[in-house]
Amino acid sequence: MNAEQLHNDAIVIDGLVIAKWDRELFEDMRRGGLTAANCTVSVWEGFQSTVNNIVAMNALIEQNSDLVIKVRNTDDIRRAKAAGKTGVLMGFQNAHAFEDQLGYVQIFKDLGIGVVQMAYNTQNLVGTGCYERDGGLSGYGREVVAEMNRAGIMCDLSHVGAKTSEEVILASEKPVCYSHCLPSGLKDHPRNKSDAELKFIADRGGFVGVTMFTPFLKNGIHSTIDDYVEAIEYIFNLVGEDQIGIGTDFTQGQDQAFFEWLTHDKGYARHLTDFGKIINPEGIRTLGEFPNLTEALLRHGFSEHQVRKIMGENWVRVLAEVWGE
Amino acid sequence: MNAEQLHNDAIVIDGLVIAKWDRELFEDMRRGGLTAANCTVSVWEGFQSTVNNIVAMNALIEQNSDLVIKVRNTDDIRRAKAAGKTGVLMGFQNAHAFEDQLGYVQIFKDLGIGVVQMAYNTQNLVGTGCYERDGGLSGYGREVVAEMNRAGIMCDLSHVGAKTSEEVILASEKPVCYSHCLPSGLKDHPRNKSDAELKFIADRGGFVGVTMFTPFLKNGIHSTIDDYVEAIEYIFNLVGEDQIGIGTDFTQGQDQAFFEWLTHDKGYARHLTDFGKIINPEGIRTLGEFPNLTEALLRHGFSEHQVRKIMGENWVRVLAEVWGE
Repeated sequence: MNAEQLHNDAIVIDGLVIAKWDRELFEDMRRGGLTAANCTVSVWEGFQSTVNNIVAMNALIEQNSDLVIKVRNTDDIRRAKAAGKTGVLMGFQNAHAFEDQLGYVQIFKDLGIGVVQMAYNTQNLVGTGCYERDGGLSGYGREVVAEMNRAGIMCDLSHVGAKTSEEVILASEKPVCYSHCLPSGLKDHPRNKSDAELKFIADRGGFVGVTMFTPFLKNGIHSTIDDYVEAIEYIFNLVGEDQIGIGTDFTQGQDQAFFEWLTHDKGYARHLTDFGKIINPEGIRTLGEFPNLTEALLRHGFSEHQVRKIMGENWVRVLAEVWGE
Repeated sequence: MNAEQLHNDAIVIDGLVIAKWDRELFEDMRRGGLTAANCTVSVWEGFQSTVNNIVAMNALIEQNSDLVIKVRNTDDIRRAKAAGKTGVLMGFQNAHAFEDQLGYVQIFKDLGIGVVQMAYNTQNLVGTGCYERDGGLSGYGREVVAEMNRAGIMCDLSHVGAKTSEEVILASEKPVCYSHCLPSGLKDHPRNKSDAELKFIADRGGFVGVTMFTPFLKNGIHSTIDDYVEAIEYIFNLVGEDQIGIGTDFTQGQDQAFFEWLTHDKGYARHLTDFGKIINPEGIRTLGEFPNLTEALLRHGFSEHQVRKIMGENWVRVLAEVWGE
């Protein structure tokens, strides 16, 4: 099976996309052969604003039902594959939308939310993000983790501080993930994870999605798809072939105002970081170029079996486990 | 089969209960042999306060899972029957919780809401209640009816004005209901429905649940279960044996403060009506006395087959139709 055939045949999951949601984007997802993606619908929004984002995404899915379907379980992912559509799995990058109500975990599960990051860059009621001093998981945060375990929502730790991450990994009875991260072994950065952290999550049954966000890659904005595959290989060698997947962090279609909102605490308060120019690695600049990743993985010596796992099968297995299927 | 055996064997649905939700109430529902009930979780509350009520009901169901289960579809009703539990179907008595967002219809469907009354006594964004001048279904209201049809939530018209009710009946492509009403042919009251109104909804495939709220019964607070059965017979003779059911309007356990809230517009504004003393008909003063209703229906000459339909089978059939099963 050549690279193109393999890509067309494989389950292809992107563990994190935070793009501008519109038909053009869904068309590019189809061009890229994506079976499903974890699509961010909340970062700084509170409860009701987040529901409004879900309403908007529901409407967009309905309007583009020739391209996409809503994902509530892994059967929906398989249905998307069979129908030649892309499954939209909704996720949050911040537990802020739960506000102070444990009961909102089940409410959002009922609305189709499958993955929630415990904090985004800064401190919230649950714990602390990776851009400030991290006092660890709060008492309320422990209850949120238990409730997410019970309801079946995966805990994501990508933008979470080291101490809070460690405590979530220990507290959770279901696998947790870094849905989109890079190794600090290749480039030191507050958002990147050390070898010890990557092994820690993997040793406890957790999962690592590898991002390609160039500010966090060794060669920065000059990175190519081969730099991305180098990072995948690096993490593969640490966590093994069953607990690794893709989580691109595509921001396709977003404008400067969006990045300003994203990089300020609460969307408007203090400035946390400056990415500089946002440009994805050459060879995978858009979701539509996803097939190049399958080709690059094969070219770097991964077997067909390993490529299938990395490109999506591992994600589906771990999501089924967390969702209690 | 005697009355007791029939009651135990039948599917027993109460189309409207607005009681104080607690374990004691659920125990009385079990005593009464209820298979399921439409349990009000919103009257004057806006969106997020209504979600909070659902959160509270979810928690109560979880804590009392030996007595009750949550109902999302008619399979859940059959599961409740098989397990000897009572199914809690959540409903609203006011479309106010949809606020100005059509998308909230699907949100609440996802949270398990199966029946929504279009207005409660007064005017809202959708239409007008039965206690003020009624200008009919608004333009937005037409969109809400269409979205409820699409999502699968039943339109309830019990507390809705005559003109809005007529226009909802004509606009809806799915059966709609008066979930809990009495005939003005037996007592003239703004909340009671005329023979023409009852025939109008029935002729268009709609459904009538009969209430026993004594202020609306001919004999007022001196009514007995036989007065209730007289009202059931009256409506039965108008709408036939397939489009009639029970909708008691039990307010069991509620205190004076609750009735003050209920009878003021928005829960606090102008006073709309004064019920006087609230006392249910002798023989069916509590949910636990529900078996007496089966006995009284048989005593009044209804056949076993008709009693089964009135007590619950008709409700299950129409709900399945509206919910798109």
